[in-house]
Amino acid sequence: MQNNTLKEIGEQLLSANRILLFPHMQIDGDAYGSAVALCYALRNLGKDAYVLLEDKVPAFLSFLTQDFCLEGEPPFESADISIAIDCSDVERFEKRKDCFFRGKTSVCLDHHMTTKVFADYNYIDAKAAATGEIIYDLLKVIDCEFSPLISDALYAAITTDTGNFRYSNTTKRTHMIVADLYDKGLNHAKVCVEIYENVRKERIALSANVLKDLHIFCEGKAGLVSVTQKMLRDNHASLEETEGIIDTLKSIEGIEIAVLLKEKEDDLIKVSLRAKSYGNVAEIAKSFHGGGHIKAAGCTIHSPLADAKKMIIQAVEKELAKGSSL
Amino acid sequence: MQNNTLKEIGEQLLSANRILLFPHMQIDGDAYGSAVALCYALRNLGKDAYVLLEDKVPAFLSFLTQDFCLEGEPPFESADISIAIDCSDVERFEKRKDCFFRGKTSVCLDHHMTTKVFADYNYIDAKAAATGEIIYDLLKVIDCEFSPLISDALYAAITTDTGNFRYSNTTKRTHMIVADLYDKGLNHAKVCVEIYENVRKERIALSANVLKDLHIFCEGKAGLVSVTQKMLRDNHASLEETEGIIDTLKSIEGIEIAVLLKEKEDDLIKVSLRAKSYGNVAEIAKSFHGGGHIKAAGCTIHSPLADAKKMIIQAVEKELAKGSSL
Repeated sequence: MQNNTLKEIGEQLLSANRILLFPHMQIDGDAYGSAVALCYALRNLGKDAYVLLEDKVPAFLSFLTQDFCLEGEPPFESADISIAIDCSDVERFEKRKDCFFRGKTSVCLDHHMTTKVFADYNYIDAKAAATGEIIYDLLKVIDCEFSPLISDALYAAITTDTGNFRYSNTTKRTHMIVADLYDKGLNHAKVCVEIYENVRKERIALSANVLKDLHIFCEGKAGLVSVTQKMLRDNHASLEETEGIIDTLKSIEGIEIAVLLKEKEDDLIKVSLRAKSYGNVAEIAKSFHGGGHIKAAGCTIHSPLADAKKMIIQAVEKELAKGSSL
Repeated sequence: MQNNTLKEIGEQLLSANRILLFPHMQIDGDAYGSAVALCYALRNLGKDAYVLLEDKVPAFLSFLTQDFCLEGEPPFESADISIAIDCSDVERFEKRKDCFFRGKTSVCLDHHMTTKVFADYNYIDAKAAATGEIIYDLLKVIDCEFSPLISDALYAAITTDTGNFRYSNTTKRTHMIVADLYDKGLNHAKVCVEIYENVRKERIALSANVLKDLHIFCEGKAGLVSVTQKMLRDNHASLEETEGIIDTLKSIEGIEIAVLLKEKEDDLIKVSLRAKSYGNVAEIAKSFHGGGHIKAAGCTIHSPLADAKKMIIQAVEKELAKGSSL
């Protein structure tokens, strides 16, 4: 796939008026922060721009929500430009895809190594730690003035997708961009409190509950924990509040691959995967029709929890067997 | 207090030969990373330099340890220069103070707002997020070549003292320095795995155990948890492995001041304090003859745990009463 340049994409944006932004479903900090930052910028340029959502925004990201963030139908039948943000494929905006393709021109801005091409204009940079970094570059190219709110949204995108600068996708450039966001009026303390320090007590209880039943396998190289519907009910917590548990699991010494199984329904298991050093969890996710990065990926298994657990353990064992031959 | 310039201090270092570095007791990432980085640099300049320790280095920092890090007696009777690193007062290197003051010249490099002057040459910058930032500046001033190992040590100093760039002491400059460390050969993945992903399972069990007995007071604005000697024994964990629990406590929504009481001995309670937004925990720590920053401080109470708990709750209530009148 040949990327377009950000200049080409910028020219498309500047010549359009009605613009719809499509962050991926099960929205995360990078998708939402990137979409909100770009939407602010387009509105500052006088564009009729909206962020279109298909599911609930998690509480820790709700501070990003603005009037231009819409659930349901867009305010116009067809956009001049539809922009998919942080979406590795069409399934990542499944419910909104008709609306997306009604746009006269489509654009994809993404940093997933597994991105499948579906748009007219594409800028996919798997070296970017977050799609937020690409949005930052795009705003520079279209000579957009950075407001404090744009800086907050881009910081939210970058800090969440780099595991707060700890994941190995973090680069010199990540820190250079963040340094510049401070200059542009970033309210660092506010964003960090909103994202990291507004945790419900119930979530901490859930986390303690989940982490006490730790399954370690592959001679200590892999760890797995499960969240059942019952655990969620007992702790008065929601599925989205399992975010972060997998990082705690991965932080255990010797663990190379960490797995979190989330029982969304009886036969619908969401799987989060993380690798520490040499493992490739994108490969594991792909084998279950999922996606993501080498060190952070996910998939869905349509089976009961116990079966999903067996399947994923086999896949992890297979992946780690490869790793040990390196 | 009038600071010396880093140039003046650099000139002292360049004209010396035998140099001893004194990071504070209960050594942390900033003290150790800063001392190791400076010691590498001085040795690269041909100096006979050592880091002198008075207690055990925590496991997550042991990757920093080099031959020049000594416990016990230094290899020479008196140094040309003794340098206190990240020490807010003489009590922070109590057991080594005779050795420190035997040095012909003494230097203090620190970033604590509560620093008491005790050295001949001083550079105290309370705006620096970590003493590691000051060491970075000093190495630039003496025109020292940054090796990858110096970069790793400075990154360790900065990431630990900024709560991995989340604490409000983090600045644009923090990110600019880190960006430069990438250029100088920082092994980011290695350092992050060493510091953050080598956690013993027992520590995670301890954390779950401690956090389930959460005491919330001041109408949800304050939270307190305690670690007893029994909890440490039951979980096969050490006192140093409580690091991080207070950050989880502070992350709960609405909590402004977080307190962790650590029962070191029956009548010896170590207190860690954190403030989220407007609280000043340095004031609380000072009232118990402790020290630290506005948002992160600590003290010791020589009383049984139950009494220490009452005392600290009163002090927190007093501090938060101030805050609410702002």
